[in-house]
Amino acid sequence: MESQLPLFYGLSFLTVVLAFAFAAYLYLWVKKQKTVNGKIAEVSQLIKEGANTFMRREYLVLAKFAAVAAVIIFLLLPSPVWNGNIVDNIAMTLAYLAGTVLSAIAGKIGILVATLSNGRTAEAAQKGIKPAFLIGFRGGAVMGLLVVGCSLLGVAAVLMITGNSNILLGFSFGASSLALFAKAGGGIFTKTADVSADLTGKVELGIPEDDPRNPAVIADNVGDNVGDVAGMGADLFDSNVAAMASALVIAQSLSGGEFANISMVFCYAILGLFASIIGIATARVGKNGNPTRALNSSTYVTTAVFLVLTALATLLFDGFSWRIWGAAAIGLLVGVIIGITTDYFTDDTKPIVKKVAHASKTGPAFTVLSGVSYGFISALPAMVGIAISALVAYQLCAPMGEGYAIFGISMSAVGMLSIVGMIISNDAYGPIVDNARGLAEMGGLGEDTIRIADELDSAGNTVKAVTKGFSISAAGLTVISLLGAFMSEANEALAAAGRELLTGFDIMSPTVFFGILIGAAIPAVFSAMLILGVDKNAQRMVQEIHRQFNSIKGLREGKPGVKPEYGKCIDIATSGALRELIPAGLMSIAATLVVGFIGGPQAIGGFLLGNIVSGLLIALFMSNSGGLWDNAKKYVESGAEGGKGSDAHKAAVIGDTVGDPFKDTAGPSINTQITVVSLVSSLCSSLFVWLSIFH
Amino acid sequence: MESQLPLFYGLSFLTVVLAFAFAAYLYLWVKKQKTVNGKIAEVSQLIKEGANTFMRREYLVLAKFAAVAAVIIFLLLPSPVWNGNIVDNIAMTLAYLAGTVLSAIAGKIGILVATLSNGRTAEAAQKGIKPAFLIGFRGGAVMGLLVVGCSLLGVAAVLMITGNSNILLGFSFGASSLALFAKAGGGIFTKTADVSADLTGKVELGIPEDDPRNPAVIADNVGDNVGDVAGMGADLFDSNVAAMASALVIAQSLSGGEFANISMVFCYAILGLFASIIGIATARVGKNGNPTRALNSSTYVTTAVFLVLTALATLLFDGFSWRIWGAAAIGLLVGVIIGITTDYFTDDTKPIVKKVAHASKTGPAFTVLSGVSYGFISALPAMVGIAISALVAYQLCAPMGEGYAIFGISMSAVGMLSIVGMIISNDAYGPIVDNARGLAEMGGLGEDTIRIADELDSAGNTVKAVTKGFSISAAGLTVISLLGAFMSEANEALAAAGRELLTGFDIMSPTVFFGILIGAAIPAVFSAMLILGVDKNAQRMVQEIHRQFNSIKGLREGKPGVKPEYGKCIDIATSGALRELIPAGLMSIAATLVVGFIGGPQAIGGFLLGNIVSGLLIALFMSNSGGLWDNAKKYVESGAEGGKGSDAHKAAVIGDTVGDPFKDTAGPSINTQITVVSLVSSLCSSLFVWLSIFH
Repeated sequence: MESQLPLFYGLSFLTVVLAFAFAAYLYLWVKKQKTVNGKIAEVSQLIKEGANTFMRREYLVLAKFAAVAAVIIFLLLPSPVWNGNIVDNIAMTLAYLAGTVLSAIAGKIGILVATLSNGRTAEAAQKGIKPAFLIGFRGGAVMGLLVVGCSLLGVAAVLMITGNSNILLGFSFGASSLALFAKAGGGIFTKTADVSADLTGKVELGIPEDDPRNPAVIADNVGDNVGDVAGMGADLFDSNVAAMASALVIAQSLSGGEFANISMVFCYAILGLFASIIGIATARVGKNGNPTRALNSSTYVTTAVFLVLTALATLLFDGFSWRIWGAAAIGLLVGVIIGITTDYFTDDTKPIVKKVAHASKTGPAFTVLSGVSYGFISALPAMVGIAISALVAYQLCAPMGEGYAIFGISMSAVGMLSIVGMIISNDAYGPIVDNARGLAEMGGLGEDTIRIADELDSAGNTVKAVTKGFSISAAGLTVISLLGAFMSEANEALAAAGRELLTGFDIMSPTVFFGILIGAAIPAVFSAMLILGVDKNAQRMVQEIHRQFNSIKGLREGKPGVKPEYGKCIDIATSGALRELIPAGLMSIAATLVVGFIGGPQAIGGFLLGNIVSGLLIALFMSNSGGLWDNAKKYVESGAEGGKGSDAHKAAVIGDTVGDPFKDTAGPSINTQITVVSLVSSLCSSLFVWLSIFH
Repeated sequence: MESQLPLFYGLSFLTVVLAFAFAAYLYLWVKKQKTVNGKIAEVSQLIKEGANTFMRREYLVLAKFAAVAAVIIFLLLPSPVWNGNIVDNIAMTLAYLAGTVLSAIAGKIGILVATLSNGRTAEAAQKGIKPAFLIGFRGGAVMGLLVVGCSLLGVAAVLMITGNSNILLGFSFGASSLALFAKAGGGIFTKTADVSADLTGKVELGIPEDDPRNPAVIADNVGDNVGDVAGMGADLFDSNVAAMASALVIAQSLSGGEFANISMVFCYAILGLFASIIGIATARVGKNGNPTRALNSSTYVTTAVFLVLTALATLLFDGFSWRIWGAAAIGLLVGVIIGITTDYFTDDTKPIVKKVAHASKTGPAFTVLSGVSYGFISALPAMVGIAISALVAYQLCAPMGEGYAIFGISMSAVGMLSIVGMIISNDAYGPIVDNARGLAEMGGLGEDTIRIADELDSAGNTVKAVTKGFSISAAGLTVISLLGAFMSEANEALAAAGRELLTGFDIMSPTVFFGILIGAAIPAVFSAMLILGVDKNAQRMVQEIHRQFNSIKGLREGKPGVKPEYGKCIDIATSGALRELIPAGLMSIAATLVVGFIGGPQAIGGFLLGNIVSGLLIALFMSNSGGLWDNAKKYVESGAEGGKGSDAHKAAVIGDTVGDPFKDTAGPSINTQITVVSLVSSLCSSLFVWLSIFH
């Protein structure tokens, strides 16, 4: 059956080429769309330059970090270089670097296309919703195709060249360390800019959201791109690679059908990318003119195509199992259901958002209290969904033989992530149309155009809540399979040391329990550090904005020709984001190492579990309550509960400000924190076996 | 060695008599303190009647609940009555009822003394801080002594009569179901009243906090008593009984030294009560006149006396082990350290409170964001402390033989809870002096007296944060030993069914994992339901207050002789609290049953673990952030960051309002939720063995 594997390597590269070609076609299509408005071109250019500034600085810091990490990896992983095989250490180091570079390239091109699309979307909105939607969506789709293409390319190349799935963990760790910078750093950047712009603009001066007099306005628009396009892309690149890597590590540890199983992982990834291409190609606003429906229906198309094609593959190929197909299908279906329940808690046509808006009438404390409460409740369906998909996948695949149960869970994660190309496209659409709305206002395109841009933006917000719930859940399921990968890594090291192998992690063991409690505290501390980082950084930026309004003559009054120094605000957001992010990232890694060196692999098993469980809970709570407050504010602004300027509106604005760093900084960064910690654990498993105090 | 056990039963009853006699002495001492002010007597009487109204209604609902529960217990527990031994079922039912009744009696008398002490404390404050402190403290100490006395009495009597430690779980469940009503119901009551009084009084009408025109003011004062005296007492009664019961269940399952171990559990409980009596008897405000120091130093006295006496007992008695002593000592020390770190996060002389107060200058969203962040961070030391004490206790006791490791953890919980008499005394002191401050204002006792009452109140607030951290951590450690108790119960049932015994709960098992994820979501949903309950209930009460101000002529203007209808507000708070509480309690129990019937004992093991871990995290977060916001507001009111009336003050008040239901309703009720769920699991273990879908 080994003979099938080269076929799937070949098909992988072919599909990657197809995806890149389609991305190039979409890029050129977006680029040839007309742009005539000078003002829009100018502001577009400023956003593009700002985003480039951030990316350049971020990649510079990352390059230093990666260089240090590469040296450590070379010296110590997969086993100390003075003990083991130097070729493995070189391969691991190169794989790590490839993971960072591929993710960086995808992010960089994604940003480029997004900043190209925003202005064109704004201008197309003058002609109607259909052409504008298409530009916004296709601009985002470039990012979606690149991310999935790069991850499949990297995973297939690393495994084909080395033949050793453990090296994939190095590649995955490269993707994770980039994601940590991109998602958490981008998250701090975007909310620093957003909060400062709102506080000084809307609150202090009473000028509109996107008023060009505000020195933070460009930083705010840049933030949407670096946080949501590059950050979300890196995050899902990371999850996707981790899901494939852990499935492949487990597949390689299975005896008997391992080559069929490895082929199956690649086959599912190929068909997922192919289904996303079809979904992207068919996305169009229909006659009803509803962009939310267009985004959702192309997600459903992708899901259906994937399920049909993988069923066909299961029929066609030797050694492909219907049980594994079932595990992948249940993962994907649960992912879609989680998306729908998230929507229930965050959509302003549903009752929850209305309740929070109503509570705002009693004052901001009640906005906060009700939002926190519903945010907590909203975590339940996703956690039940993940629990059920893990249980079903396990029960389905356990009869196939030893180790297959956990392989089933990892394929459930691969299934859930199969439509990730479509998910990223939907997600990257959000900041493009959000920027387009701002540009339509700054370019003076008139009320009709702004109304269309608003409609596109609102669809982006709704879909964003859904994709966030989806990506958090996918990360949760992925990390369960990373726990399996960790166990198989630790057992290799234990076997080498001649010690007893792990058969599991018993809650009643005190080292496991010790790990669980500490692991559970880490996402709370990590998210708190990021939120406090936004807080500190915003205070610096508010000072700079005040300085500009006081020292630049004519700025406050909007005298023609007087411009704020946008670059200064971008600088503050950039340097602060990177400064505040590093302690949080190092804290998570240090906690992993401390727990591992105290309690060994057993404690790390517990640590990862605690981390996953509390991480999922906090991430879902923060993302959903943040989305809820955002939409409650919009609902009040649409005229409910007293409308704009009422006390309820003031309360809702406070709720939204609390929710901003919840949903765009801390919540979605927890994914990355969990993956980073899991990969550090797997990579350091032999060190923990040798050096820990307790066993 | 069995011969020692009767000695310890005898000593238990003797110590209980001593504690009750001392409590009676303190009660009579408080009662004979002079009271001359007619206005204070009148308001005191109103508070007393209000508290009685709530307690009567609460106990009535509880009686119905207990009757239904008793019938179910009789029919099904410890095994279905048609299958097993009817005598056991009768014993279990009676033990359950005894648990509710003893807890209710302790609560009832505690409230009686507290409502007797508040007025006397206020009047004594005219003579200085020393006499006033003594009345407030001794009034609270009656509750402390009664709670610990009743729990020792009940546990010793049940075990002596039945000889079967499993029946103790029924007694413990009785204590838990009362605690659920008292703590969660009292918590909803007190915050309904507090929030409504503040919203209508301070915010809408601009009248002071304790103005007698406000129809909610008596309900607010009643709330302090029913929430903090009766609620906290029932909560710690519950934890204390659960710690002893689980230690005894595990001790009885040990082979060899079981009687020495049972004796040891009683010996530690006796010496803990004895040490608390000494601590209470020696509590006095010293020359420096600092009440906080007086409360803390008597806690340290109790701790030291307990450690010395138990060391002596270990020397004296056959079969008492130094390893177990070490486990208990580490538990107690970690409890004290957790108290101190909690203080760091919530004391307004320490940096964190000042940082949150400073953030309030930027607006209420930053008050909330920084409070949430530090609240999350504050959970870390307590979780690390619990993890370390469990790890150390386990490692210390594991060499003693099979089953001793988990016995060591349960003794660590018994050690942590040994000083609970002192802790409850400190805690009940809080609402007494809080009431006293209000009474001093309403009775017109002058500024000097109010200043002294303020000082006493502030000490109460500081100590409250510490005792809350302590009681949450103690519950955490207790529940770990309940997990051990559950495993031994489930194994009995599995042995009876001829099935394979549990050796632990493996994280990698899908049923365990399924349980963990759902268990982790429950405390989040439970606390959300309570907070939403406060929200709904406060809206009803605000309407009633508006009705009174609009329909009672002269009330708004404070015309002499015109009084609001205080009773209506007390009625609303009472009926609403009970109505909102029941769904949350039932949800937790239903979730336990669903998980148990789906996944059997394995899933329940995971469920309890997930519940403990996320429960600890959320409870610590909510209690600490709530305390932090409260003190940040007080810090601003003392003149910092612009002082009263500034924007920072408005923001800090919003933070405090968010924090109120966090720290007084949801946070501390999670303890009880965890214990209830653990006991339901242990009690239903044989049902889960027989009826579950997966095993």
